[in-house]
Amino acid sequence: MNIITGGVTAPKGFQAAGIHCGIKDNFTTPQPDKKDLAMILSSVPCAAAGTYTRNVVKADPVILTKEHLADHQARGIIFDSGNANACAPKGRENAQRMAQAAAAATGLRPQDFAVCSTGIIGVELNIQAIEKGVPSLVAALADTPQASLDAAHAILTTDLKVKEIAVTVELGGKTVTIGAIAKGSGMIHPNMGTMLCGITTDCAIDGALLQDMLRQVVTKTFNRITVDGDTSTNDTCVVLANGLAGNPAITGPGEDYDIFFAALRHVCEYEAKMIASDGEGAGRLITCTVMGAETEEQAEQMAKAVVRSPLVKCAVFGTDANWGRVLCAIGYSGAQFDPKDVEVKFLSRAGELLVCAGGQGVAFDEALAKRVLSEDEVVIQVTLTSGSATCSCWGCDLTYDYVKINGDYRS
Amino acid sequence: MNIITGGVTAPKGFQAAGIHCGIKDNFTTPQPDKKDLAMILSSVPCAAAGTYTRNVVKADPVILTKEHLADHQARGIIFDSGNANACAPKGRENAQRMAQAAAAATGLRPQDFAVCSTGIIGVELNIQAIEKGVPSLVAALADTPQASLDAAHAILTTDLKVKEIAVTVELGGKTVTIGAIAKGSGMIHPNMGTMLCGITTDCAIDGALLQDMLRQVVTKTFNRITVDGDTSTNDTCVVLANGLAGNPAITGPGEDYDIFFAALRHVCEYEAKMIASDGEGAGRLITCTVMGAETEEQAEQMAKAVVRSPLVKCAVFGTDANWGRVLCAIGYSGAQFDPKDVEVKFLSRAGELLVCAGGQGVAFDEALAKRVLSEDEVVIQVTLTSGSATCSCWGCDLTYDYVKINGDYRS
Repeated sequence: MNIITGGVTAPKGFQAAGIHCGIKDNFTTPQPDKKDLAMILSSVPCAAAGTYTRNVVKADPVILTKEHLADHQARGIIFDSGNANACAPKGRENAQRMAQAAAAATGLRPQDFAVCSTGIIGVELNIQAIEKGVPSLVAALADTPQASLDAAHAILTTDLKVKEIAVTVELGGKTVTIGAIAKGSGMIHPNMGTMLCGITTDCAIDGALLQDMLRQVVTKTFNRITVDGDTSTNDTCVVLANGLAGNPAITGPGEDYDIFFAALRHVCEYEAKMIASDGEGAGRLITCTVMGAETEEQAEQMAKAVVRSPLVKCAVFGTDANWGRVLCAIGYSGAQFDPKDVEVKFLSRAGELLVCAGGQGVAFDEALAKRVLSEDEVVIQVTLTSGSATCSCWGCDLTYDYVKINGDYRS
Repeated sequence: MNIITGGVTAPKGFQAAGIHCGIKDNFTTPQPDKKDLAMILSSVPCAAAGTYTRNVVKADPVILTKEHLADHQARGIIFDSGNANACAPKGRENAQRMAQAAAAATGLRPQDFAVCSTGIIGVELNIQAIEKGVPSLVAALADTPQASLDAAHAILTTDLKVKEIAVTVELGGKTVTIGAIAKGSGMIHPNMGTMLCGITTDCAIDGALLQDMLRQVVTKTFNRITVDGDTSTNDTCVVLANGLAGNPAITGPGEDYDIFFAALRHVCEYEAKMIASDGEGAGRLITCTVMGAETEEQAEQMAKAVVRSPLVKCAVFGTDANWGRVLCAIGYSGAQFDPKDVEVKFLSRAGELLVCAGGQGVAFDEALAKRVLSEDEVVIQVTLTSGSATCSCWGCDLTYDYVKINGDYRS
């Protein structure tokens, strides 16, 4: 697998665009420089798959997209940022009008489009701004790296960084490419926290198989990140596969399946970690790796509790090697284990620090602890002696800026 | 039921004391004014009951107290604050030495004492300071309101307020008194978040019955508060009932049982709300009341998710009537319901504000919203149309001070 530049336009036959149409002008000062409308489009029909929030309160675009992708076929994705169109007046109608606007401007059918929205909940979508913007959006479609970057920018809300990646693999002598853009920030938690991810690939693959594969991959990637434990109304991850790479179509298990699975997992894990490290107000990416567990489920339960704990998150913000909070978090995670078996280490580029062995504190160098925890990426490694299963989950520290951003998001 | 002044010394036959012995000098600058050692003692044997953290990682004092109270008998409680004696070297030995010191100074047996510790995890307890302090502690024992207040102060860590209450009820023509002191602050979450509570009563009641009653009461009170979703290693609630009120002993169901149950629930609910409103960095008490639910369990699941949500907590801090986050939280709570049935109101002394009806936003007065949310106590009322069950849970807002306090607790 090679990592290449470019995002969703890297695979053959995909165009993208991102523009400003004025949705955010609904609830904040006009920001003409801020893109808020994006599209991804394939030149030919695609096998399509999606995973969606498990929140009982689902935004209308989520429900509509699920319907549109039920036949595992689509051509494109239209995104808006600034308004989630969730619990909002005319939610269903406006989600449909977004798909209709995309269809009218591209000469396709509404059901060829996935619709993804993110932003404020409960406010009526400014559909006029979107309908007015879509022709310009379609006119801006291009297969360049810049076009992918524009789309990646246009889907952000309180995110600070674009989240773009592309990789290639060889399948049956052909180069197959996967590209992705994503957005995250607040309300991020396992089970598709508030995140949107659009993935493109020129791989030839059966649609139902792609759906099954995506579900598995999301479970091991996006569902293992947390920013604040809140799961949103709008989470959506969509894959479009147009087959233009010319590889022998993947229709079942085998070597090609495994290679493509690993590549898709890499893409999703990269985007998931980008989302975690760019969580609202985040200063540091926290990885918790639990090793030596009896089962992967047990390891995941414990690792998730650690990256979700507000006290652990505050301690990392304060570069405080307060491992007692790590023990506390695995203790209430719901996983069963013997506390006397637990070893805890903090690791980063600055070094490695053993803080707890046999379930008890060990003396450590406080100055080294500060150095280890001051890095951008900090790993909390929990080792048990129950088995050989391992799992990593990702989160971020809890900072003053998180409180600031979320104390007054609507104004 | 009457609410009276005084705390754990209000019931007949109980003494209390709180002094400084130097435990906190372990990890911070000496604070001779800060009390850190407390005792509650009955002049006669008591029926005793306890509930404890469900964290897999239990501090040694918790394990020891559970053993000491297994026979439903005790005489007193010894507390330290500043060191939790959890995951700490010589944890078991030092918890035992605390009980032994209490026993030696009072002429009782170690197993007559519950041992409660709170504070830093993973650091060896300064047992010498405790052993040196206990004779002065016992010498300070008194049955005055001030003595209860001293004990209430001595068990605090990052708490800002003492949490003391006493009530009386009439049982069989006798006045029965219940008193309590508690501490909370960080790491507070359902299932006995980091909290200690010592309850005294002169009621005559069977020990096994008292244990069963306490378990039920804690489920409906302390287990319905959350500060940060973290459940600690040390949570303990102990009741001592010495029978000196002379009421006909409660040995089973009946009117006296019901009256005493209601009084005990009132005491625990009061302490629980005090803990929530004094959560680390808290500016406001948030009550979420879910009404019209099919079952109390469903209502509790939803109310807990709301008061636990960092996004809701930040919104209340920012006096932002962001009801979308309330819908989002009940949506991922695990409870099943029809989003179209949901009504949400914000209430406080400043007024009442309908923000969502039929699962959708309704126009509201932003100025009134600011006023309603600026009060010390804010109620988020969620009304369903599924049934008649109701539940309230309590929490607090998420503030800059929470991050500050927890970013550097150890130093």
